Amino acid sequence: MSKKVLIVGGVAGGASAAARLRRLDEKAEIIMFERDEYISFANCGLPYYIGGSIQERQKLLVQTPEAMKSRFNIDVRVHSEVVSIEPARKIVTVNSKDKGTYEESYDALILSPGAKPIRPSLPGIDSPSIHTLRNVHDTDKVKAKVSEEGTRSVVVIGGGFIGVEMAENLKELGLDVTLVEAGPQILAPFDAEMAAVLTKELQSHGVNVILSDMVQGFEQDGSQVKVQLASGHALEAEMVLMAIGVTPDVSFLKESGLSFGPRGHILVDEQMKTSLQDIYAVGDAVEVVDFVNGQKTAIPLAGPANKQGRIAADNVCGLGTTYKGSQGTSIIKVFGLTGAATGNNEKTLKRLGLHYHAVNIHPSSHATYYPGANPMSLKLLFNDEGTVLGAQAVGVDGVDKRIDDIATVIRLRGTVTDLTELELSYAPPYSSAKDPVNMAGYSAENILTGLTEVFVPADLEGKSLQDIQLVDVRTPLEHSKGNIEGSVNIPVDELRDRMQELTLEQEVWVYCQVGLRGYTASRILKQHGFKVKNLTGGYKTYQMSQPLANTTAPVAAK
Amino acid sequence: MSKKVLIVGGVAGGASAAARLRRLDEKAEIIMFERDEYISFANCGLPYYIGGSIQERQKLLVQTPEAMKSRFNIDVRVHSEVVSIEPARKIVTVNSKDKGTYEESYDALILSPGAKPIRPSLPGIDSPSIHTLRNVHDTDKVKAKVSEEGTRSVVVIGGGFIGVEMAENLKELGLDVTLVEAGPQILAPFDAEMAAVLTKELQSHGVNVILSDMVQGFEQDGSQVKVQLASGHALEAEMVLMAIGVTPDVSFLKESGLSFGPRGHILVDEQMKTSLQDIYAVGDAVEVVDFVNGQKTAIPLAGPANKQGRIAADNVCGLGTTYKGSQGTSIIKVFGLTGAATGNNEKTLKRLGLHYHAVNIHPSSHATYYPGANPMSLKLLFNDEGTVLGAQAVGVDGVDKRIDDIATVIRLRGTVTDLTELELSYAPPYSSAKDPVNMAGYSAENILTGLTEVFVPADLEGKSLQDIQLVDVRTPLEHSKGNIEGSVNIPVDELRDRMQELTLEQEVWVYCQVGLRGYTASRILKQHGFKVKNLTGGYKTYQMSQPLANTTAPVAAK
Repeated sequence: MSKKVLIVGGVAGGASAAARLRRLDEKAEIIMFERDEYISFANCGLPYYIGGSIQERQKLLVQTPEAMKSRFNIDVRVHSEVVSIEPARKIVTVNSKDKGTYEESYDALILSPGAKPIRPSLPGIDSPSIHTLRNVHDTDKVKAKVSEEGTRSVVVIGGGFIGVEMAENLKELGLDVTLVEAGPQILAPFDAEMAAVLTKELQSHGVNVILSDMVQGFEQDGSQVKVQLASGHALEAEMVLMAIGVTPDVSFLKESGLSFGPRGHILVDEQMKTSLQDIYAVGDAVEVVDFVNGQKTAIPLAGPANKQGRIAADNVCGLGTTYKGSQGTSIIKVFGLTGAATGNNEKTLKRLGLHYHAVNIHPSSHATYYPGANPMSLKLLFNDEGTVLGAQAVGVDGVDKRIDDIATVIRLRGTVTDLTELELSYAPPYSSAKDPVNMAGYSAENILTGLTEVFVPADLEGKSLQDIQLVDVRTPLEHSKGNIEGSVNIPVDELRDRMQELTLEQEVWVYCQVGLRGYTASRILKQHGFKVKNLTGGYKTYQMSQPLANTTAPVAAK
Repeated sequence: MSKKVLIVGGVAGGASAAARLRRLDEKAEIIMFERDEYISFANCGLPYYIGGSIQERQKLLVQTPEAMKSRFNIDVRVHSEVVSIEPARKIVTVNSKDKGTYEESYDALILSPGAKPIRPSLPGIDSPSIHTLRNVHDTDKVKAKVSEEGTRSVVVIGGGFIGVEMAENLKELGLDVTLVEAGPQILAPFDAEMAAVLTKELQSHGVNVILSDMVQGFEQDGSQVKVQLASGHALEAEMVLMAIGVTPDVSFLKESGLSFGPRGHILVDEQMKTSLQDIYAVGDAVEVVDFVNGQKTAIPLAGPANKQGRIAADNVCGLGTTYKGSQGTSIIKVFGLTGAATGNNEKTLKRLGLHYHAVNIHPSSHATYYPGANPMSLKLLFNDEGTVLGAQAVGVDGVDKRIDDIATVIRLRGTVTDLTELELSYAPPYSSAKDPVNMAGYSAENILTGLTEVFVPADLEGKSLQDIQLVDVRTPLEHSKGNIEGSVNIPVDELRDRMQELTLEQEVWVYCQVGLRGYTASRILKQHGFKVKNLTGGYKTYQMSQPLANTTAPVAAK
């Protein structure tokens, strides 16, 4: 007997589930409900269509109901909102544009409702100039608004992925863009020093970035909307884009009896099964396991959603495929830079009280003697056992590759020693004989084997220079161009001859530009009986770690 | 008591060993002997300096004896050839330009002599117009020769990495370039259909490629050298570059008592220890374990050499670090394309009689709706247990990233299921929600779980169309532009309605353009009782697998 499968939501997870389901079961009756007009559109491409990198709107429409019908024999019903489900009767109630309200029964139900942008209940939030971005319809509205002759400035609220992507794209359209972030940094998956590089890239391209300031309300004033900030400052623009995060779009499931997590996400097991018989859920609406730390989390990303859709379909067909958790691998283009991250960052590890080590390195994207090499900053987090916990990288190119390599090692529960042993493709246009990923592994291993100890810029805070000897081991020229206050300059190449300038009585903290000469210096000193620490990532990381100034350009006093 | 370590050879492995050794042991006496003038030069950059991408010769000289002295306190002796070693007395004999012949004793000895280009004993091989490329000196000579006014044409003999890189670089200088390869394909790490794409790229940029033809001899004729081929054809050029491979440069070790492999490589254990006490060897001169199949092999690449140098230094200092084998990860730029490979290829697996499966896919480098997406061809090899054995990829961009991901999975002994589960960085400029690596994993898993069976172009050879029904499931338009002889056209979207055109009595072999529609078609048919196979990689792989015609342009009859 053929089974009847209903799928709620026709994007990412839902569409993935439908296609896989049909390939597994030619006879199943498969109905996919989509509230909107479009299924399987390119969500991740919306900012780029608004910005003009993607020129044809048609390109956003990856899949059509007609094609899903002819290729996969899926009964796609658009403009059809599932408004409630009744697990006891195994039916869903559908509110359809053309057929009115009706019930549909199921043998299996896959929920892929997604998440919706948060609209906080602030004064003036209903202003028509305040937009959010979720679907093609929103995109059309934003695109129309930014194309209007009078639209010259935009305030983007929220420095997450969508906020930053929108800031970049709107700026590229020639608009005045101000990005407001309530926290002290943008792009939460990154630690502060890494996010700072991306913030500066926004600023250097003319985006005004305001950190640590909250929006308190809005006021429409003719064609302008005034954005009131907690600091007392106010901003004015023709448009506001609200991108402070998303929340599971699950209000239709309120009476369903399904179990939800603390932030309203549908609870599922490894097979994407919910708490109720024959009901599966996938995508941005579900809670997942953090692959690294094992805690529950929610990670609204396209990759996991697509994989989960396929896994739900497998399990509807009894294959027993499992989803082992999300590690939050993510990436963003910010003008000429790329930032990418995977696994846990330092903030998360600290919050969970997990012991970890961190190294920062600044390798070259490929052999420096071959044209086009660019520096990147790579941060690696690992524990005492050497298990890799997370990584972040920022640079002009080669960033995605290195984060993907490390994401792969994390997924296979590998160690920093594994990183040193990876045999990655090398020719001068692509990498170095020791790839940045190998180098990160070496740096980490040197700490775990006790060859070197490191310190981070934050360790300098509150540290009196009476207690330590801070030594800049770079050249005098480098030292003269900028150094850490209170440091003395002894170039590494002179260290063996000038060691008597240091006392064994106090710890020596050394630093160089990126950490490599400092490591060599630390080895020289340590073997001569000094207690030494080296600044991981060197002066470059120190500079990245300095607090950023808010851009104040278009901010009017209250 | 401080130990005395001698290092023979100052490039890659030797230089790596020296730096690590010093960091581990500040007190050791370290002497590095280099026969040539230069240490630690950019071997992999030599072709690009000749071709002009690297403009300053100075850039090739990565490290100098002076810098090695001041930074690492290494006694670097250039123009100093170690001509023999006496393990019983623990001494080496050095032939030095400035100090004549002398002996030096050691507590530990690290051999990093490298490998030298093979010069076969053919008639006329001593012609001054015949060059090889190993070091800076060779590079200067080749660069001088190609810069001479009269040099218009070059014959490159050998289609390995150096041969192809030189062919590209010489062509970019505007020379007439003919590449002669004795085997039926260039670039042995690739299987024939993948190498064919790179061959065509050479041809489309004007390099004449002659496959399956051997050089029999040379004849100098004024400024020209005539290259006589086994086929009876002959070539004429102002210069010949011989790049048919390398052989360990170990003649000075003949009387040492060291153990050697069948092709003259120094035998070492996991710690890079040779058969003799306190003697280590690294780099192109040693035999290593093939990480995938466990057999002995020799892989002359910079990455392994550098890692081995570091490991030898570790073991001189008693750290017990091990080298677990080489998987031969390699990459090459061929004009606008990149080819990369890791692990074993199909030829190797066949030769060793190992059972394997292969899938070919042709994914996009990133989301197709974002500008700049390019197709790539990716081939994955795996066994019945799902263990990943090897991969190869060719494309415009994103090739290095995918091969590195798979190289990482191979290194961690991962499976095709691991490939499906990798959570790789996705945003439209970088990838797709299901990365090509995930897709390769899915394709492989679908075979192992019995969802689909595949065939390869070679399976069609000798297959009578009386025995199978060959069905092109692409559109009529695609079919009309070129198809496999004897195939009937039933588009996948019509298959459910036109199934009665096929008989259950015979196997159905389906194909589409890249394999995806064919897979869907195979699932439809299989569930209706047909015995089906799908062409992995589709018509595109079929086309890649067609024999290449030799370029005949500048070939003169005998």
